[in-house]
Amino acid sequence: MPTRRDLANAVRALSMDAVQKAKSGHPGAPMGMADIAEVLWNDFMDHDPANPSWADRDRFVLSNGHGSMLIYSLLHLTGYDLPMEEIKKFRQLHSQTPGHPEVGYTAGIETTTGPLGQGISNAVGMALAEKVLEGQFNTPEHHIVDHYTYCFLGDGCLMEGVSHEACALAGTWGLGKLVAFWDDNGISIDGHTEGWFTDDTPGRFEAYGWHVIRGVDGHDAEAIKKAIGEARSVNDKPTLICTKTVIGFGAPNLCGSHDCHGAPLGDDEIAETRKNIGWEHGPFEIPDDIYSGWDARAKGAEARKHWEEKFEAYRKANPELAAEFERRVLKGDLPADWAKKAEDFINQVAEKGEKVATRKASQAAITGYAEALPEFLGGSADLTGSNNTDWKGCKDITATVSDGNYIHYGVREFGMAAIMNGVALHGGFVPFGGTFMMFSDYARNGVRMSALMKQKVIYVFTHDSIGLGEDGPTHQPVEHHASLRHIPNLDVWRPADAVETAVAWRCSIERNDGPSALALSRQGLPHMARDGQQMADIQRGGYILRDCDGDPEAIIIATGSEVEIAMNAAEELSDRKVRVVSMPCVERFEAQDAAYREKVLPSSCRNRVSVEAGVTDYWARYIGLDGKAVGIDTFGESAPGGDLYEYFGLTTPKVVEAVKSVLA
Amino acid sequence: MPTRRDLANAVRALSMDAVQKAKSGHPGAPMGMADIAEVLWNDFMDHDPANPSWADRDRFVLSNGHGSMLIYSLLHLTGYDLPMEEIKKFRQLHSQTPGHPEVGYTAGIETTTGPLGQGISNAVGMALAEKVLEGQFNTPEHHIVDHYTYCFLGDGCLMEGVSHEACALAGTWGLGKLVAFWDDNGISIDGHTEGWFTDDTPGRFEAYGWHVIRGVDGHDAEAIKKAIGEARSVNDKPTLICTKTVIGFGAPNLCGSHDCHGAPLGDDEIAETRKNIGWEHGPFEIPDDIYSGWDARAKGAEARKHWEEKFEAYRKANPELAAEFERRVLKGDLPADWAKKAEDFINQVAEKGEKVATRKASQAAITGYAEALPEFLGGSADLTGSNNTDWKGCKDITATVSDGNYIHYGVREFGMAAIMNGVALHGGFVPFGGTFMMFSDYARNGVRMSALMKQKVIYVFTHDSIGLGEDGPTHQPVEHHASLRHIPNLDVWRPADAVETAVAWRCSIERNDGPSALALSRQGLPHMARDGQQMADIQRGGYILRDCDGDPEAIIIATGSEVEIAMNAAEELSDRKVRVVSMPCVERFEAQDAAYREKVLPSSCRNRVSVEAGVTDYWARYIGLDGKAVGIDTFGESAPGGDLYEYFGLTTPKVVEAVKSVLA
Repeated sequence: MPTRRDLANAVRALSMDAVQKAKSGHPGAPMGMADIAEVLWNDFMDHDPANPSWADRDRFVLSNGHGSMLIYSLLHLTGYDLPMEEIKKFRQLHSQTPGHPEVGYTAGIETTTGPLGQGISNAVGMALAEKVLEGQFNTPEHHIVDHYTYCFLGDGCLMEGVSHEACALAGTWGLGKLVAFWDDNGISIDGHTEGWFTDDTPGRFEAYGWHVIRGVDGHDAEAIKKAIGEARSVNDKPTLICTKTVIGFGAPNLCGSHDCHGAPLGDDEIAETRKNIGWEHGPFEIPDDIYSGWDARAKGAEARKHWEEKFEAYRKANPELAAEFERRVLKGDLPADWAKKAEDFINQVAEKGEKVATRKASQAAITGYAEALPEFLGGSADLTGSNNTDWKGCKDITATVSDGNYIHYGVREFGMAAIMNGVALHGGFVPFGGTFMMFSDYARNGVRMSALMKQKVIYVFTHDSIGLGEDGPTHQPVEHHASLRHIPNLDVWRPADAVETAVAWRCSIERNDGPSALALSRQGLPHMARDGQQMADIQRGGYILRDCDGDPEAIIIATGSEVEIAMNAAEELSDRKVRVVSMPCVERFEAQDAAYREKVLPSSCRNRVSVEAGVTDYWARYIGLDGKAVGIDTFGESAPGGDLYEYFGLTTPKVVEAVKSVLA
Repeated sequence: MPTRRDLANAVRALSMDAVQKAKSGHPGAPMGMADIAEVLWNDFMDHDPANPSWADRDRFVLSNGHGSMLIYSLLHLTGYDLPMEEIKKFRQLHSQTPGHPEVGYTAGIETTTGPLGQGISNAVGMALAEKVLEGQFNTPEHHIVDHYTYCFLGDGCLMEGVSHEACALAGTWGLGKLVAFWDDNGISIDGHTEGWFTDDTPGRFEAYGWHVIRGVDGHDAEAIKKAIGEARSVNDKPTLICTKTVIGFGAPNLCGSHDCHGAPLGDDEIAETRKNIGWEHGPFEIPDDIYSGWDARAKGAEARKHWEEKFEAYRKANPELAAEFERRVLKGDLPADWAKKAEDFINQVAEKGEKVATRKASQAAITGYAEALPEFLGGSADLTGSNNTDWKGCKDITATVSDGNYIHYGVREFGMAAIMNGVALHGGFVPFGGTFMMFSDYARNGVRMSALMKQKVIYVFTHDSIGLGEDGPTHQPVEHHASLRHIPNLDVWRPADAVETAVAWRCSIERNDGPSALALSRQGLPHMARDGQQMADIQRGGYILRDCDGDPEAIIIATGSEVEIAMNAAEELSDRKVRVVSMPCVERFEAQDAAYREKVLPSSCRNRVSVEAGVTDYWARYIGLDGKAVGIDTFGESAPGGDLYEYFGLTTPKVVEAVKSVLA
């Protein structure tokens, strides 16, 4: 029977061989953490390789995602649908083994990691989701939600600021089912970390309120096992297990050095490593007894079956809760009557026809939809009263209140984004979170990761222009509308009034293949009148809001708070044939068929003017070389918002002038 | 004679009155920190109101920048050029008192703050600059560099991840002359912070290796004075003074509540506050004895004079060092022979004509220029060997080595950016720092702040496309070129070969009104042949790299690694009149006169094709509605770089096809 070390060595062999074959990759971390992974996966992880999406499985996150061969090895060895052929295609186009773990590519990968610090933050989000689902669904008799989130992380994750934000919150929330393992190997890419990473990390995590287990030998299976047991026994605090490891453990010449971090070991060192660790098998050869030692299929099926029985008992006792759990968590569906409720709400908003800031209209939409959507998990990065992300009846989540639906993230925009990604990946919720649009900058790579991972996360970015006023250029987004639109697979909405805001929320909620960002005004915006067709066309992302008789001589394209200016300009130009197109979501408009786009923006009309309180070069895609853009290509200024619109020329007369100039 | 409290109350009165008049602003923090500021500014700060740029002044950073009325009050009261008329125009267009402190608007403002966490990180950069200048210029006999950096910060700064990154480094570097004051008032915008900010902050900072002074009463002048004295006595560690304060101190009904954080107190509460604190003067009235108590002009002039005498003695003993200090620190000039050396280097590169990755060409440029530029302060966020930011002869800065010029920032991109901003603001250096272009996302608001503050900071962003290869979509920038170009006042260079790289470095070094970002390839790029005019035109940002006889039928516009593809396509199309424009820096090209731009891109030629391995919509600004863009509008994939160029259609045949389609 193979020893634990033999089992761990299978991970080492696969990792060094796959990296060598790919001539690219990171053998150091998998070889260093193999012993820890072996204990965790063989003795503790509840998972079913045949059913990677089983709802109550333990989650495993490899925050040091460059060590991807570790998780691929684990998935292959324990019996997931990841054949050896795919291991051999490590880092090749469209293999199931991309360079960094990518959710959706490989069964068993819970989140895409690589951008450091975000994996542990996703893990915090997953553990939060678990806790809140416990609060919302478990009953004293039935614990249908009851699983751990395990996370491996390296020095790089700990240096990144986002780890501070997310781990501080994990401590505040007392996420007792989160267990993180610090790969304390003293090496990062630049070499021995003592020149740039001198934190007392255990002390730091104790300051966050974590339970910290210090000084565990990451190559001593018994010590690891004891530590994990201790971690699981602490229910009111997340645990950090500090495991001292040797990077590239087993490689006789390169271990303990950054030379084995991010490059193949080379054939000679691999041969010597084989000898050194006593691994007598060829590349990509795993003997049967090693496979047996790792195989988690029978145990996993058993665990899942046991949970299914628990769930059936739960269903008998709580049929309504169980049906809701099935809808939200198992299927991820919206309620059956959702479409009707949403439609009704939007029509109500249109009937009211109020002048209101879209951030307030957004709050009305949240309130209007929240009753139908107990899966809402709202929050703000310490700007609740400004982002208007709370609603009547929302309930704060704290260390002791787990059945709530609102989160005070504190001033932690990046952490909020990465945590929301973790919540969305876990399932059961529609997370949304607010900050000033400016501070989308802080969260930017988290927003990108939502888009890359195709997660339903809704970003509420208020104070979306110089209309923010006195706070000045540090708080006034100028380049952000365009920059966010450049992120692939992110829908960016900039609604012009309360009706477009309600539609933007609806579309964001209904979207199943990615995140949405709502750019919302601080200042009040008037209601726009629309007929039935126009109401229906809002969700197309761009539509004719005001038309002229016959073919337009000029088209004004505007978004958000500048639609009002465009409409006023068209009114002043009523002796000419001027069309106004409201373009609340460029991505949705671009997804329409060519006929619709041509109808809205006929190619014959080159007299086009764009109006948006942001950088103008973005709008060339619609106005071309012959059009005119009204916008701002410099930083803002500190002054009342109205003064700034005048100062920067975002006014009706300037738009009239621009239209006249393209008509001339 | 006024008491200390009377003096502090002047700050409170000005703050509440200015916010009230503006009907906008944040009275809570200035009123809460007034007593601390009074002790620091009256008893410790070495500064000269008449000479705000005196090189050896103490620096003061208000990291909680929303409390701007605190610093405006201090500057006004101590005798800076900030008349009461400007205080009355708080938050109005083009006043010297914008909503958040902005460097360049107001004498005595050291950095622009507001985006939380960055002020303290700038302060770390300033203290680092001080330490390195000490190492480079002080002699055992002459300490011409010897000043403190003081920083006020609030809970918000401490929650932000960037504070983790920068403060960890401050501890690692042992920045003994950095003294930070935590405004521990238990309040942030969402209310009492205990629901979302439960860190043991003193413990956290001790974990970073800081000297921490706990539990100082922020309204007890003697306690504050004692703490500052203690902080200054510790030379090998930065100090955090934890000052317990009451937000809005003095306001009888609103103090201690988030209601006084970000809104005017209101006339009634202001009247009651006046009574409560015994301030009997009208709005914007300061009695003479209060002015006298604050006036720092005589003391400041004396201190500066004393330093000037020290500097004269230093000059006598070390004429060369003194001349260099004058050039680098006092004037911020480049060396007299710089232009010639740069010219020579660029010509050498052109003569060599090597095929080389631009990240390696960048290292050659750094090496080539470093000898002339001892003000280089290079570094990388733990990617030195990949970013190629080090050079022969560079010397690492550590806790004990202060005369170096290279920094291992660790995996801390945002912290690096904010620290470089602090270094640049301090003066004496040309800071540059590297990371993968993808992780410009993490640093994004720091890059924006470099641009807003017009600081000479050079960002080295390598691995600038899918050419990065196997690491996959988490590491492959796609939207980043366009998104960075949207940041006002940031020059984004994407050089096509070693020559353009050398010119990009030269232009970035010579630029005095803002930052530059260099997007550099992982993969080798061939040398492009150029005549003298073309060599001279590179610095114009866009130029004709290959022309045809007579007016072009089609123009291909390309950047960076895709210029080679464009050139090959033009070669294949040699039977047609095809021009190739290399566009290494759009911002520079846009700054050229209309005649030059028209010469390069004649408006008569609408058959235009852009080629860049990034989002295509950006290029509509040059190709309009009739052109064709070759690029990538989705996320990348994990595979060898060459495979990805094929897969995503960034190939010569595809560009040929695009040109033919616009010609058809």
